[in-house]
Amino acid sequence: MTNWKLPPLLRGPIRVRSRHAGIERPQALLDGLPDRPEALLALANRHVVSAKQFDRDLVVQLCRLAASIEVQPSLLRPPLTGKILITAFYEPSTRTRLSFESAWHRLGGDILSITDPATTGIAKGESLEDVAEMFSNYGDVVVLRDSDERSVYQMIETLRVPIINAGNGIDEHPTQALADLYAIFKWRPGFALCDSGDRLRVGVIGNPGKMRTVRSLLLLLSLFKDGVEEVVIINPAGEPFDPGDREALERRGLRLRLEHRLGAVLPLLDVVYINSIAWIGDSFERLTGDISLNDRSALKSGAIVLHPLARGPELDVSLDDTSHNWYFSQARGATFVRMALLTSMVERVHRIADVRSPD
Amino acid sequence: MTNWKLPPLLRGPIRVRSRHAGIERPQALLDGLPDRPEALLALANRHVVSAKQFDRDLVVQLCRLAASIEVQPSLLRPPLTGKILITAFYEPSTRTRLSFESAWHRLGGDILSITDPATTGIAKGESLEDVAEMFSNYGDVVVLRDSDERSVYQMIETLRVPIINAGNGIDEHPTQALADLYAIFKWRPGFALCDSGDRLRVGVIGNPGKMRTVRSLLLLLSLFKDGVEEVVIINPAGEPFDPGDREALERRGLRLRLEHRLGAVLPLLDVVYINSIAWIGDSFERLTGDISLNDRSALKSGAIVLHPLARGPELDVSLDDTSHNWYFSQARGATFVRMALLTSMVERVHRIADVRSPD
Amino acid sequence: MTNWKLPPLLRGPIRVRSRHAGIERPQALLDGLPDRPEALLALANRHVVSAKQFDRDLVVQLCRLAASIEVQPSLLRPPLTGKILITAFYEPSTRTRLSFESAWHRLGGDILSITDPATTGIAKGESLEDVAEMFSNYGDVVVLRDSDERSVYQMIETLRVPIINAGNGIDEHPTQALADLYAIFKWRPGFALCDSGDRLRVGVIGNPGKMRTVRSLLLLLSLFKDGVEEVVIINPAGEPFDPGDREALERRGLRLRLEHRLGAVLPLLDVVYINSIAWIGDSFERLTGDISLNDRSALKSGAIVLHPLARGPELDVSLDDTSHNWYFSQARGATFVRMALLTSMVERVHRIADVRSPD
Repeated sequence: MTNWKLPPLLRGPIRVRSRHAGIERPQALLDGLPDRPEALLALANRHVVSAKQFDRDLVVQLCRLAASIEVQPSLLRPPLTGKILITAFYEPSTRTRLSFESAWHRLGGDILSITDPATTGIAKGESLEDVAEMFSNYGDVVVLRDSDERSVYQMIETLRVPIINAGNGIDEHPTQALADLYAIFKWRPGFALCDSGDRLRVGVIGNPGKMRTVRSLLLLLSLFKDGVEEVVIINPAGEPFDPGDREALERRGLRLRLEHRLGAVLPLLDVVYINSIAWIGDSFERLTGDISLNDRSALKSGAIVLHPLARGPELDVSLDDTSHNWYFSQARGATFVRMALLTSMVERVHRIADVRSPD
Repeated sequence: MTNWKLPPLLRGPIRVRSRHAGIERPQALLDGLPDRPEALLALANRHVVSAKQFDRDLVVQLCRLAASIEVQPSLLRPPLTGKILITAFYEPSTRTRLSFESAWHRLGGDILSITDPATTGIAKGESLEDVAEMFSNYGDVVVLRDSDERSVYQMIETLRVPIINAGNGIDEHPTQALADLYAIFKWRPGFALCDSGDRLRVGVIGNPGKMRTVRSLLLLLSLFKDGVEEVVIINPAGEPFDPGDREALERRGLRLRLEHRLGAVLPLLDVVYINSIAWIGDSFERLTGDISLNDRSALKSGAIVLHPLARGPELDVSLDDTSHNWYFSQARGATFVRMALLTSMVERVHRIADVRSPD
Repeated sequence: MTNWKLPPLLRGPIRVRSRHAGIERPQALLDGLPDRPEALLALANRHVVSAKQFDRDLVVQLCRLAASIEVQPSLLRPPLTGKILITAFYEPSTRTRLSFESAWHRLGGDILSITDPATTGIAKGESLEDVAEMFSNYGDVVVLRDSDERSVYQMIETLRVPIINAGNGIDEHPTQALADLYAIFKWRPGFALCDSGDRLRVGVIGNPGKMRTVRSLLLLLSLFKDGVEEVVIINPAGEPFDPGDREALERRGLRLRLEHRLGAVLPLLDVVYINSIAWIGDSFERLTGDISLNDRSALKSGAIVLHPLARGPELDVSLDDTSHNWYFSQARGATFVRMALLTSMVERVHRIADVRSPD
């Protein structure tokens, strides 16, 4: 506009530096999945606390609806006009809160936000049952994150509106797992139907007994066991599962294998799921050298890397501009999956999909 | 959806555990009150700071409009589209803030929220007069809570938009008192017209000199003195009134009596208003045993219990599932009363009631 | 409403105590400026980080659009319905955040707000490049304030949506400078066209090397050098410019003069721009007596005082009710300027001005 010396990025309209993998509109996924939105009616007026609540058809139809929104994000008639979301993040988080709030706003709804536990009635000693009674009067859906895994269960004792568990301590984070599946489906639509020619070998770097995202992901993966050759849990020390959890997954038909080191197994993996090391404590931190990924890691050609973000040093930025980077697509897709889920929970799915109205 | 072991509350749509008293739509109140919404025009472009500003007709018509909204909460044409509320909670509160914000959103408006005093200009030493000048540019209504009772009075010196006092120190909390009256009206519609066969004996456990909710409630109750047999203030120690306040209420015709213990008077009370003990200091805390309520308390048959919430140990959860529990109805109704009040203050009441437009 | 003793300000509708200068609708400015909104198309999908990015025509057309909104604030068809603003204030601020949020809401959009750095991913050590990647998925525009001047430059490396710099350390605050110019234009419409009979003598009390508002203001003033007789920088100690900055401004044709004391020059100034002393450190604080303004200061008849607010003791309230007070008009106008800017950046200016749609 004028002749002042300006950095190149300020001299004209935004030029996107790179378009990472999986950011294009998921038309192939949309076309590849059967259109059976009736499955979503099962979510009407229902809490979503655990990945255990989902069956395969429900996950597939949620991801299909998410894809239809991502392909055409401008909703002609926002389905949640007049509806109110309460986001209660008693454990700090920006990423997950903004993802849910962006999803809700894009659906046309309004938001009441609680971000600081110190300013809440909880700080005054109010019980979660009373808080839930209050939320039932003020909102139409609640999204809760709390470092105490019991909080969401206390709330559902008195809640009269649906709640979503957005992370309860080290227990579960089911919508993150839905976003993980959605990313895999976009990359390999056949996996959603378990009809891909080759079964996938999935590596999970982390600890399902201590990481809520891993726990929820394994539960959802077990629904698609026919497409999974095996899940390799890479964990440097000891037994990573809580008692009984490994057996339960195996009874569901998921093939599980444990490894202590990443090196040998990495070149065999089709999907590598890596998590923030900082959350897992000392043993991992000492072993960062072995379990971190960068653009020199021996990744299989065509393999994708997923990470729930925010990341630490375990996931180097040198991977960002490679075709292995599907973690940005995964983060982006989370909003669309949540849009599909929220719309279904408040009984408005008939406004954006071809199902009968509940009225 | 699948056969994982799930807690019963996650196995299907939400089943409300109990429907407490006073939660059904208040058709009887709506039918019982005269429809004179012109009274609400007096609120147009006006600050609401003290319960002293209300007369009987205004309280009745606000509650009637609240009932009409509660009976039919889906507003075909939200009256506050394009209007902006500023909620400034310099004293932490979640319940009151969410109630106001839910009310405003349900009316179709947008919100600017200030929840952390440490992030505000006030922390930099900006005067409240300057803050009010700023608010006049950015919003259409202000809701203020501040632990200093003078703050709201400083702000109205320069504010050009209406403000609601949502609690100023130990002084007043007029919209809480409106919610209290609304709950009593829903329970006994005849009380609003002072034509109920029997006069009510109201017990107030607390200290009108130190509790803003009690002070505002007594002011509103004095408007309905014809329906009040007497108000019994239950206060364990000393003189609970500020100098002159008791005499002022009595000159208005309200019969007042003081008791130091709850025991003897409880079985005589039709309405029991109890407050959080923690707010009143030591003398109450030592006497909790006497002034707390539970399902074994000698409540009169048909009596109702009110509490502004959040509660402490003075109100036991064993009362929640009894017909004495009207405190949840009271909390729920607060949103509808605030919807009626806010709409009137921004001169939009003609959009939801049958009065002439100001244009 | 009743006969309780009430303070006068609570006895009836709001009576504005005083209508300070520059608060009336700027019809004269609107009529005086040429209508060339095509200039605003240059802002489409563009970051706004520095005042260096603006040319004269762009500033004039932004202020003209702002005036058209201020003259007729009720937008029949809000142009930003469905759009999402992310306000990220990592350095606390209420005034600027509320101004942007009010502007966005008045345009019909929704907001995701981050006000507490301690609750964000940044606190977990997430990089700004990753935060920007996240913001690109969740919002349509970002407004950033950060005490580190490099943050906004880090973010634009990966952002795919436009960002506005709302203050980066001591570097720049370009939208504040736009609001400053808008206030001057409203006072003296001819200045915008550089055709006012008399050139203006502008005094700036402050330190362009340490104050972001002053730095950005001088950059914009240099675009209107033909209407500026001279800019007098009043600064009690030493060299106020960063190396090279004074020379750059002078090469642009701006006449600059330094003074150490306000006294002698004050009666000559047409525009006095004063800033919060507290931001500048010790030397200023010791000299407050000389550089503060009140209603006894020797201001030229007809001169205007501007201040970015919040103010400290350097700007006495006794000036509020004088005709020199244009700082309140300046604060009020900031919202309209930001409405014009935001609408242009998201390519919706065709919805509120007579330009071709980009579609």
